[in-house]
Amino acid sequence: MAQSIFYHAGCPVCVSAEHDIVALIGKNNVDIVHLGEQKNKIAEAESRGVKSVPALITPNGNVLHINFGASLADVRG
Amino acid sequence: MAQSIFYHAGCPVCVSAEHDIVALIGKNNVDIVHLGEQKNKIAEAESRGVKSVPALITPNGNVLHINFGASLADVRG
Repeated sequence: MAQSIFYHAGCPVCVSAEHDIVALIGKNNVDIVHLGEQKNKIAEAESRGVKSVPALITPNGNVLHINFGASLADVRG
Repeated sequence: MAQSIFYHAGCPVCVSAEHDIVALIGKNNVDIVHLGEQKNKIAEAESRGVKSVPALITPNGNVLHINFGASLADVRG
């Protein structure tokens, strides 16, 4: 299976969702990107359609916004 | 792996998310419940913490609201 990407920002909602997603799809199938620590990736996430975190990009490029932790504007700070 | 439950209501956002979730976790690992057709399950979904559809209940009972299709109030009609 191609890789999914999980974008988060370390918030409690993000961490909880990360645990759930890893349990569901397996940690080898998902790249975890912490946008709070890797601010250079915020523009990349945005270009992929991410509006808020946590969000999962599926292997076919769809964006699944999962619950709501923070908007990208909040993460950008 | 224990079963997850995916609640939806047939809306375009729901159908798209359903395809993604089935592709990610496998159709044998998720029960799909169409709340528009099974209105008797709306109360059950609500008691599990579902506020809107599409939503996924993980095997450990967490609710992942995925994107936003419709509120449960809208589904109830």
